[in-house]
Amino acid sequence: MKLYDLPASPNARRVRIFVAEKGLDIPMTPINMMENENKTEGYLAKNSLGRMPLLELEDGTCIAESMAICSYLEQLHPDPPLLGRDALDQAIVEMWQRRMEFELLMPIIAIFRHSADMWKGRITQVPEMAEIETANVKDKMIWLEKELNGQQYIANDEYTVADITAQCAFVMAKAALGIRIGEEMTNLSRWWERVASRPTARA
Amino acid sequence: MKLYDLPASPNARRVRIFVAEKGLDIPMTPINMMENENKTEGYLAKNSLGRMPLLELEDGTCIAESMAICSYLEQLHPDPPLLGRDALDQAIVEMWQRRMEFELLMPIIAIFRHSADMWKGRITQVPEMAEIETANVKDKMIWLEKELNGQQYIANDEYTVADITAQCAFVMAKAALGIRIGEEMTNLSRWWERVASRPTARA
Repeated sequence: MKLYDLPASPNARRVRIFVAEKGLDIPMTPINMMENENKTEGYLAKNSLGRMPLLELEDGTCIAESMAICSYLEQLHPDPPLLGRDALDQAIVEMWQRRMEFELLMPIIAIFRHSADMWKGRITQVPEMAEIETANVKDKMIWLEKELNGQQYIANDEYTVADITAQCAFVMAKAALGIRIGEEMTNLSRWWERVASRPTARA
Repeated sequence: MKLYDLPASPNARRVRIFVAEKGLDIPMTPINMMENENKTEGYLAKNSLGRMPLLELEDGTCIAESMAICSYLEQLHPDPPLLGRDALDQAIVEMWQRRMEFELLMPIIAIFRHSADMWKGRITQVPEMAEIETANVKDKMIWLEKELNGQQYIANDEYTVADITAQCAFVMAKAALGIRIGEEMTNLSRWWERVASRPTARA
């Protein structure tokens, strides 16, 4: 098993944290996107979309998409469970994972793509989209602050992949966009301290 | 069990097709978004994001997010499997489901939101985004045409939720945006005939 990694990518980071939480040791090969290593014939044969992360199995089978990789690793190594414990719990974790992905992580990535110098010339940047998504993310942080009331973690009372996705979203928001969790957001601040102090947070 | 439905929504449609493929009979309550029925206090207590579809269980527990609903129904009613048969197959199906969701369905919804009259005044429309995503979707259709070479269905040789997501994307592309699968796309055209002729296609 081998993981093709993109060190700065929030999607790659959530797989790295997931792997670390499972206590697994999977060799990682970083792919340099700025040098177009993801557009070589060899890499495109593994993932025709040229994206990372990508899990390559011993027989050469490749699994793209961060959550598909996490689900596969969960099946192989069920402990500790990061995707829920029974059918209903799994549904709730998946619901929250998707909410964190669609309401926070994707808009944050969109702000970055539409505003960062590194994307200039690679995509058509629309500055208005960065503004719209910044307002959207701020609204969703207020929503999440309310939802976290009385909760230790995002989906339930255990650390799950929903927390990992939200963590990676906020790491990118802070590092790349200067969007921070304000002190007045007490639930979100406490949640952040809880997740950011885990030994795996810097995986 | 009760499903809150939004008849015209591609996300609600994929759950309806999933339910029909499983042969289940779940009562559906349509929610009229134009009348803001999804913004009432009662509905927001079930889903604070005010979105459909939503599955409400007998004890009042609510599961939002189309794929979380599908995963839950798959656990309760494993036959026929629509999310894959074993760990690796499930990972491949999840990978393709996500690719269909992120590369086709979401961009198609974005085109609609940024161009349709029904969204005027409800969101800030950015016509340039509709143009960018239209070009993106056309590129992804060419990519999918190649990927389908020699394949009966999108993820493998069985009909799965990846096909359902793609189907719902193309229904919306055609009905709302006039984007059609061209005859020269022979793999994609054959796939479309295969899925659109299923008895559940109009669920």
